[in-house]
Amino acid sequence: MRVEFPLDLILLMDDTTGKRRFKLVIAYDGRPFDGWQSQVSGNTIQDILLAALQLICPAVTTVQGSGRTDAGVSAEGQVAHFDTPEVWRMGADEWRKALNTKLPPTIRILAAEECGAEFHARFNAVGKHYRYRLVTGEVLPPLQVGLAWHRRGLENVGDLSRVLQTFEGTHHFRAFSANRHDGKDETRDAERTIFEARVVENGDHEFDLHFHGSGFLYKMVRFLVGTAVYCIEGRVSVDEIRRLLEEQGANKAPYCAPPDGLSLLSVNYPER
Amino acid sequence: MRVEFPLDLILLMDDTTGKRRFKLVIAYDGRPFDGWQSQVSGNTIQDILLAALQLICPAVTTVQGSGRTDAGVSAEGQVAHFDTPEVWRMGADEWRKALNTKLPPTIRILAAEECGAEFHARFNAVGKHYRYRLVTGEVLPPLQVGLAWHRRGLENVGDLSRVLQTFEGTHHFRAFSANRHDGKDETRDAERTIFEARVVENGDHEFDLHFHGSGFLYKMVRFLVGTAVYCIEGRVSVDEIRRLLEEQGANKAPYCAPPDGLSLLSVNYPER
Repeated sequence: MRVEFPLDLILLMDDTTGKRRFKLVIAYDGRPFDGWQSQVSGNTIQDILLAALQLICPAVTTVQGSGRTDAGVSAEGQVAHFDTPEVWRMGADEWRKALNTKLPPTIRILAAEECGAEFHARFNAVGKHYRYRLVTGEVLPPLQVGLAWHRRGLENVGDLSRVLQTFEGTHHFRAFSANRHDGKDETRDAERTIFEARVVENGDHEFDLHFHGSGFLYKMVRFLVGTAVYCIEGRVSVDEIRRLLEEQGANKAPYCAPPDGLSLLSVNYPER
Repeated sequence: MRVEFPLDLILLMDDTTGKRRFKLVIAYDGRPFDGWQSQVSGNTIQDILLAALQLICPAVTTVQGSGRTDAGVSAEGQVAHFDTPEVWRMGADEWRKALNTKLPPTIRILAAEECGAEFHARFNAVGKHYRYRLVTGEVLPPLQVGLAWHRRGLENVGDLSRVLQTFEGTHHFRAFSANRHDGKDETRDAERTIFEARVVENGDHEFDLHFHGSGFLYKMVRFLVGTAVYCIEGRVSVDEIRRLLEEQGANKAPYCAPPDGLSLLSVNYPER
């Protein structure tokens, strides 16, 4: 008996044919999802994005992000890549449009471009920009629920600038990170560079903390924010923060801020 | 047999004792609720607010808003009033704090003040300010889902100013309103004054349409926005809009924009 496969299916299945790689820029509302990274729940950005990709092209097997974002963390410029068989005749703009028809409105593809096989969303990233929103007013505005950390009546927010400067430069950030649940301890190699950490007053009792860095450990931005807020509350001193950095993880930072206020604004790659 | 009631309950039940009236300024995210006005579902701002008031003081019987907002419409400054028995010893600031502990985070009391019995949230209102958000870019940002009307690729948005000017002044707005489901036809007395109607460009492909008026009929802002957008799309002319106003309701406005983009920013009362 002879089994016949259609030619294009054979081509799809044949690993010796070439691949096309696409880079995506993705925005999402973190509130309804269980984070970026694929989980059994299926309710993650990675799972939902892969399902949409496979609805369009069943031969797509994985989508690789620049890094994980936790449950509740939003993004305005997450980056990911995926591969299609070379014979799959869809261009970047067709992918962007098709994906946006398959994805929920809380996940949007902002841009898509075809890139070389040498591009890798995670390994090629040379910098990330995160924003953390802090609201100190009497009430958290209803439209900010889940999008800001509400610290009612927090004072001396102007002092945050000075505290955030402590984090700038190259440091061993192990004290400012959590171990992953999966047992991977990425904190062993915990040296990172923060190019800039600053606070921008953004209207009435609203403050945006911006972090530009070479990369960030698991929950690192949230530990930096939580510790900086503890510092202006007088619960930890700038000297103690410096010691936490110098001790390279012997002691842990005092507080990890909630995910609500965090958003990944952009991921940087070397110019090609 | 003699039934004894505690004194304070008797006082609460006695309508001949005086009342205290409080004015509230309320913000809400319209997306999870079925509008302002009480309904069988119970999932309305008025129902949830009254339940919170009664949890604190069972003698509160009603809460009166400045007007209804439709399902999906948000508010940054809705106004309402309620009465307590004179003997109920809670001040305005205690009410504000207590209510915010009972309400969901998507409904917040921004301010409370004690006012005279002559104040009425609906009948004393002399002006309202609504904002309608329009996004014309390729994608609607995930955090704007349900908070803006997405008209992809809409052009000539600059022309909106000229169209909105047509609405300014005192007109008979019956053509720009819907009949209420409950059969009340408030459009019989449909004269309203729009003090100002203007568009503000608010970042990348985002436009805020502001309406300051003496009052607005049911769905009126949405009809004004829908018709203005139809006009810059060339589907209705400014002359035809003028005619709709002059005909006093003989013909209906061509389009009612969705509730998503609408927010009640403030309600004005005469200075006391």
